[in-house]
Amino acid sequence: MKVDPSAVVQPGASTPEGRAETIEHGGDLAAARLRFPAAPEPWIDLSTGINPHAYPLPAIDADLWERLPQASDEQAVLQAAAQRYGCKANNIVAAPGSQALIQVLPRLFEPSDVVVLGPTYGEHAAAWERCGHRVVERRASSDIGEARVAVVVNPNNPTGRVIAANELRALAAVLAQRRGLLVVDEAFADFAEPGVSVAAQLPPATVVLRSFGKAYGIAGARLGFAVADPTLCARLSGELGPWAVSGPALAIGSAALADERWLAAMRVRLAEDRRRLDTLLQACGLVVEGGTHLFCLARHAQARAIADKLGRSGIHVRRFAAEPKWLRFGLPGAEAEWERLADATTAE
Amino acid sequence: MKVDPSAVVQPGASTPEGRAETIEHGGDLAAARLRFPAAPEPWIDLSTGINPHAYPLPAIDADLWERLPQASDEQAVLQAAAQRYGCKANNIVAAPGSQALIQVLPRLFEPSDVVVLGPTYGEHAAAWERCGHRVVERRASSDIGEARVAVVVNPNNPTGRVIAANELRALAAVLAQRRGLLVVDEAFADFAEPGVSVAAQLPPATVVLRSFGKAYGIAGARLGFAVADPTLCARLSGELGPWAVSGPALAIGSAALADERWLAAMRVRLAEDRRRLDTLLQACGLVVEGGTHLFCLARHAQARAIADKLGRSGIHVRRFAAEPKWLRFGLPGAEAEWERLADATTAE
Repeated sequence: MKVDPSAVVQPGASTPEGRAETIEHGGDLAAARLRFPAAPEPWIDLSTGINPHAYPLPAIDADLWERLPQASDEQAVLQAAAQRYGCKANNIVAAPGSQALIQVLPRLFEPSDVVVLGPTYGEHAAAWERCGHRVVERRASSDIGEARVAVVVNPNNPTGRVIAANELRALAAVLAQRRGLLVVDEAFADFAEPGVSVAAQLPPATVVLRSFGKAYGIAGARLGFAVADPTLCARLSGELGPWAVSGPALAIGSAALADERWLAAMRVRLAEDRRRLDTLLQACGLVVEGGTHLFCLARHAQARAIADKLGRSGIHVRRFAAEPKWLRFGLPGAEAEWERLADATTAE
Repeated sequence: MKVDPSAVVQPGASTPEGRAETIEHGGDLAAARLRFPAAPEPWIDLSTGINPHAYPLPAIDADLWERLPQASDEQAVLQAAAQRYGCKANNIVAAPGSQALIQVLPRLFEPSDVVVLGPTYGEHAAAWERCGHRVVERRASSDIGEARVAVVVNPNNPTGRVIAANELRALAAVLAQRRGLLVVDEAFADFAEPGVSVAAQLPPATVVLRSFGKAYGIAGARLGFAVADPTLCARLSGELGPWAVSGPALAIGSAALADERWLAAMRVRLAEDRRRLDTLLQACGLVVEGGTHLFCLARHAQARAIADKLGRSGIHVRRFAAEPKWLRFGLPGAEAEWERLADATTAE
């Protein structure tokens, strides 16, 4: 006899299939290899928005691997992150990736009407739906109806659309009156204009999510943060449980987040990279729709054929089932990658 | 105006304080240093049950840090873990530590009566309570009353008590009839007698939790597993979300879990270490109550004074507020640590 989890399943809890499986993501090269088995190696993965110029890894003490992550290691990364994002250390929680926070946030609220400003990163809607919330996608923050929860990715992935801080503050004020919540996912805010982030002057009823791995090019370490009032922070910590983040990730984060010089230089470098990418894509007829410092969203009537051609050349870009004319391009890293991209987009 | 999470809080969801903060744990040296500021450095941390002879870390490719963890990396660790634990790869889920699984399991079931066989690791009861379950501690598996969920740590931490597999199977059969769940936390089963683990022949209505970090001495990496039927596995995966485990942890786990020779040699070495520890503790009047290959539970009328004396010598052991005569000793690693422990326990 097999356990039948539906027997005592919580209404609105996760679907049996593990919903995450069905959401499109960039970053899985094995799937790309399977699709284009004759493509040359090494593959160039432009399907994500991860900085190709990774922060130089500090030496990682054996202790960090061997012992349980220490409270002092966690405090260190929270201090560095708070300084980096301009908030206080008691307004911030560390998690094994901002995705882990997306998973737990919906559990803290009773099933409500949730608006996700879209099109955007698919995991937000999926996580709220999994917990029994009623989720609809809307295009404008003026169009949230009676929702008690709103989710805004800012700058948005994949469009790069930025909602001004004062518009977010107005939205937060409405949701605060409803005793609801505004989720602002700032996964791509690190290199945006100053003033885009609301982490430093947190509006009421707001949680800001920050990603470490994308901006610092260390996505495999799994580190992200939530900025919120101390009560919500404590509840998020309780959901994540002790030792949520690995010791090495805490140490890497502490070093990288404190390095303002690296960040400033990287902002310049990525802006140059982004201009170069736009020029390259425009030269072969793609129309640049938007993006951030870390990716470009481009449009073309034959986007699928272009993606297939790139795939046959060992270059993996992000497609969108719901928007067949879109392609999202991450930044190439080494010069050889730029050359292969240029060759693949211009060759007949 | 501050967000008031109680406004839309789910009944039975986490307490505002983040309950985990209040549970005693070993492993926090900073707290020990604070308590005994004059103690000699380096501290020896015997307060956990983590193998002091860490598995030799393989070289970690930069890719594993930089890119998102790949599906193929996760499949590799699941294959190695399935082989190691004797189950099938579709019966196993990876998580960032078995603690992460303890956090999410209670969310999959509607509030029920839960029995935890105690005294044991405190996070189980806390996690089920946080999700609104009614938790009681019982001493015997025959004493679960009408509970639909039972939690057994086997071998138990800290007592080392082992419940025989046939007793667990009988318990699972009862819970299966109630459409409930048996949780068997095998965090300390790696070096136990063959036949202790039920992972290879999973009873009905059962989930087995396995820890990677304790047995392999790499607790900072955060890696653990659940063995369960595929439906429950899929639901756990859905709760954890994508990219739950870091790329380096997946790679380290894949290498270590496949290394049967290391495991066999370590079993012998730890048995010797454990005998040596027992002899040392008995020589200074402690009574060995139980334990596993990775720790010894000892009793002494002056346990607190002994722990203080060890603390002043820079040796951190685990106390128990509810059992003031108990001390739990992890294994010393280097010979110098054995000598310092011997000196500290015998000196006047």
